Amino acid sequence: MTNKPIARTPIPDINDLPEDIRSRVLTVQEKSGFIPNVFLMLAHRPAEFRAFMAYHDTLMDKAEGVTKAEREMIVVAVSSLNQCQYCVVAHGAILRIRAKNTLIADQIAANWRKADITDKQKAMLDFAIKVTLRANEVNDADHEALRQAGFDDEAIWDIAAIAAFFGMSNRLANVTNLRPNAEFYAMGRG
Amino acid sequence: MTNKPIARTPIPDINDLPEDIRSRVLTVQEKSGFIPNVFLMLAHRPAEFRAFMAYHDTLMDKAEGVTKAEREMIVVAVSSLNQCQYCVVAHGAILRIRAKNTLIADQIAANWRKADITDKQKAMLDFAIKVTLRANEVNDADHEALRQAGFDDEAIWDIAAIAAFFGMSNRLANVTNLRPNAEFYAMGRG
Amino acid sequence: MTNKPIARTPIPDINDLPEDIRSRVLTVQEKSGFIPNVFLMLAHRPAEFRAFMAYHDTLMDKAEGVTKAEREMIVVAVSSLNQCQYCVVAHGAILRIRAKNTLIADQIAANWRKADITDKQKAMLDFAIKVTLRANEVNDADHEALRQAGFDDEAIWDIAAIAAFFGMSNRLANVTNLRPNAEFYAMGRG
Amino acid sequence: MTNKPIARTPIPDINDLPEDIRSRVLTVQEKSGFIPNVFLMLAHRPAEFRAFMAYHDTLMDKAEGVTKAEREMIVVAVSSLNQCQYCVVAHGAILRIRAKNTLIADQIAANWRKADITDKQKAMLDFAIKVTLRANEVNDADHEALRQAGFDDEAIWDIAAIAAFFGMSNRLANVTNLRPNAEFYAMGRG
Amino acid sequence: MTNKPIARTPIPDINDLPEDIRSRVLTVQEKSGFIPNVFLMLAHRPAEFRAFMAYHDTLMDKAEGVTKAEREMIVVAVSSLNQCQYCVVAHGAILRIRAKNTLIADQIAANWRKADITDKQKAMLDFAIKVTLRANEVNDADHEALRQAGFDDEAIWDIAAIAAFFGMSNRLANVTNLRPNAEFYAMGRG
Amino acid sequence: MTNKPIARTPIPDINDLPEDIRSRVLTVQEKSGFIPNVFLMLAHRPAEFRAFMAYHDTLMDKAEGVTKAEREMIVVAVSSLNQCQYCVVAHGAILRIRAKNTLIADQIAANWRKADITDKQKAMLDFAIKVTLRANEVNDADHEALRQAGFDDEAIWDIAAIAAFFGMSNRLANVTNLRPNAEFYAMGRG
Repeated sequence: MTNKPIARTPIPDINDLPEDIRSRVLTVQEKSGFIPNVFLMLAHRPAEFRAFMAYHDTLMDKAEGVTKAEREMIVVAVSSLNQCQYCVVAHGAILRIRAKNTLIADQIAANWRKADITDKQKAMLDFAIKVTLRANEVNDADHEALRQAGFDDEAIWDIAAIAAFFGMSNRLANVTNLRPNAEFYAMGRG
Repeated sequence: MTNKPIARTPIPDINDLPEDIRSRVLTVQEKSGFIPNVFLMLAHRPAEFRAFMAYHDTLMDKAEGVTKAEREMIVVAVSSLNQCQYCVVAHGAILRIRAKNTLIADQIAANWRKADITDKQKAMLDFAIKVTLRANEVNDADHEALRQAGFDDEAIWDIAAIAAFFGMSNRLANVTNLRPNAEFYAMGRG
Repeated sequence: MTNKPIARTPIPDINDLPEDIRSRVLTVQEKSGFIPNVFLMLAHRPAEFRAFMAYHDTLMDKAEGVTKAEREMIVVAVSSLNQCQYCVVAHGAILRIRAKNTLIADQIAANWRKADITDKQKAMLDFAIKVTLRANEVNDADHEALRQAGFDDEAIWDIAAIAAFFGMSNRLANVTNLRPNAEFYAMGRG
Repeated sequence: MTNKPIARTPIPDINDLPEDIRSRVLTVQEKSGFIPNVFLMLAHRPAEFRAFMAYHDTLMDKAEGVTKAEREMIVVAVSSLNQCQYCVVAHGAILRIRAKNTLIADQIAANWRKADITDKQKAMLDFAIKVTLRANEVNDADHEALRQAGFDDEAIWDIAAIAAFFGMSNRLANVTNLRPNAEFYAMGRG
Repeated sequence: MTNKPIARTPIPDINDLPEDIRSRVLTVQEKSGFIPNVFLMLAHRPAEFRAFMAYHDTLMDKAEGVTKAEREMIVVAVSSLNQCQYCVVAHGAILRIRAKNTLIADQIAANWRKADITDKQKAMLDFAIKVTLRANEVNDADHEALRQAGFDDEAIWDIAAIAAFFGMSNRLANVTNLRPNAEFYAMGRG
Repeated sequence: MTNKPIARTPIPDINDLPEDIRSRVLTVQEKSGFIPNVFLMLAHRPAEFRAFMAYHDTLMDKAEGVTKAEREMIVVAVSSLNQCQYCVVAHGAILRIRAKNTLIADQIAANWRKADITDKQKAMLDFAIKVTLRANEVNDADHEALRQAGFDDEAIWDIAAIAAFFGMSNRLANVTNLRPNAEFYAMGRG
């Protein structure tokens, strides 16, 4: 299985990468023990790599209004609906770790409506899914429902932006046939 | 989490079950170490329990034309499309065990088109998904494609019947809010 | 037209059938004056024949909570949506007879929302259609709506189970190209 | 059942109708033995009545390239897809009569792909359904397929125009809750 | 660009047209400065031309209950959803002129929910879109919502009839590949 | 109309913006004569502003393999399908200017299949739309079709990335109710 190509796109040699990208890749490798394939796929296009990672980090590396685990819940729900194998598997692993819950990722991937999450989190995922499928129909009532559920306007922006960003990411991974690293499947299963 | 209800339907006491059903439940418990919740949910209706299990067993407990692991691939692909949490989680576990492959179930659940399976198996899943979504449009060309892929008419019946049977099962589990046993999530992950 | 094949699958000779199946087939022939083709199609697989009929009978041969005519309404509405020619034609006939109403089956097949049925029956069909199309979204509010309409939990199970069972049956008939017997079209038209 | 309203719109008294409309209504009554409800519904708007009937007649009262029975096949297939109860029931009756075939209308209404019609007629209905569902995607290949099947450009126009016209008619009947006359159900059943 | 065919159908010479049609065509040419291509396309079929124009005029040339500009809003919203290039471009021009508003047509074509229109007009377009997409599901609540918004029953008929008529028109234009006249694009842009 | 809010999100004062963002905003204002509202909306979140613009620029400010006008064609086609009013109107203007064609944007927005573009450009838009609607189904045959049409692998990446990026942008604009500047509507109309 290790011979399966990472993606249908050219995978650069790490040593040939621009220094900032090489450094980021090595940091993640040190932290995770392996290099998630999305880094190698995107590194073929350094400017896109930088913009993607900057966007990703500003949306995912904060916890105000929406916890880091909840942000990953959005990623898993959206990616499952978009049938993005890479994102479901990779972010499922991150979600298990961030939520310290071995079941939650598989529950959300299969049907978030039946997952062991709070009503507030269900309102969050309902909205993220509407942004994914019918953003053109989002209206005042949707915003009001989220406020009723306890999210402020900045949190609502975050939920929508994460759903939108991973909608992009899902499309890129699907088109490039990005393969999840084998390590992700077992991570966080306790 | 252990206090979460198994389903929204009444769950009978095992000791009150008709003898044949009680015996079947105890056998599966002995074999698996736990009682899969679908047995307890269906046992509320003994006649349906018997018909369901008889149908299930005749479709799933044979290996001619379509291997037992391949039969479980169909279940996972169909159940994922139908967003049946119970079936994805439970049959994902069985698939991992039957295929002796720790990755395959999550790959198929996320996007069977990208799974590490053979072209023949992809033709099988393409057909199972068409039966699930657009059986009304199944035609001679679909049957011919399967024959070209190497399936004979009996195997084609099996593929269609498994997709149809689990389409029913997915609906029952979704309507009754059937909860996957926690044990399934980690099974077969090596 | 009588030379048209019953189905694309092999049709067994009645005399070669296992005794229990042969007996069931002859009984229905005696009662109806002809053998509904679904019996001949399924008889190719005796174990599936038995499980299918057992499941069918336990769901359709009772009248508690949901009348026998209402059960057939569900079958016709679901089968029409699934574009199952065999089931619409055959169960349309049975519905006309059970409801003693020559118009009802065609009304429901065309658009159940406009049929001459009670509001309670419309709530029943709305739910059956949701189970057919979006069982993954069935929730507490759906169950509550049915209870408000006058159905208890056992009746709700019946409605869902009939919709799910005939969703399976529709797929089998569509895949096997099962042909409705000519007799069904005129039955119960008074 | 005779007390059920014909439609949710005001139904004019025949004697108050403009002479040309009254005359048309009486002619159809004489010919059929009853007044099809669509005449009474549309007569509330005389100018629309006249335009609708003129359009209808020019499309349906000719037989060149597409027979009159085939034109009714299009109406039944399109109306069934649009779930227009009035049109399925009324034009089902007309189709049975024009095709001198007691089964054909119910077969087409349930699933035209399985009806006892020629390959040429299936190509015709495939196109009519594409015009109904995805006219925006109709392209040269669709026209070429129809020519291969034996239709010339004038016949193709007819097929598309009939599908488009009854798409309008279906919407009007659905919005006004137009009720099929009871007489239609049994007509042409032999 | 001027050599691009008007449509895939035969375009008659104006001088060969029946007198009433020639006269209508010349009148519109005199008024607009050019002949909208839909006139030339339909003129190939004089009887259909007459019925189409009679239907069109009775629905669009009145202002009671629904203003002329609002009628064009319906046309633009429906035609955009149906991806009818001719109708969006041609009726977008008419809408800009009738509403004396240079932005409104593009706003409605892109997403009517975000257009600078009144809540009453949004209710009108919501209904027109439901008639377009799901007329089979139109019910009492839809009619009541329109009455609450300020439309009487005659206005509701108009909205539905315009949506239905242009649904037909959109299909005809898409199937015949009808090309919008270049003049329409800039009309009414101030 | 000038009092209509730019978006439902807080709009920062230009003078309060971080210097790099203020500078970018003033540059675009100088170049266009006005500040496109998307800059003001995103400026509320400086880190997202920077990532968005960096991503945008690297995808849109090059012409290799896919011309700048063609890149805007993708934006207009995708945004129209996603019913993003801001993006259709703003990028329609840019497309008119880059293609030096007053008709092209409205043609593509209404139905790209009927636009005055080359077959190669239609293959490009077909793919962009598949990425938008069904990226999960993108396969080798899609890539091969693009190569046959004359695009190399880097151009294919660009097409997919632009479709994916504007899918995100469309969702953000729809959720925030972003209003197109009035200036865009008339730009490039000659």
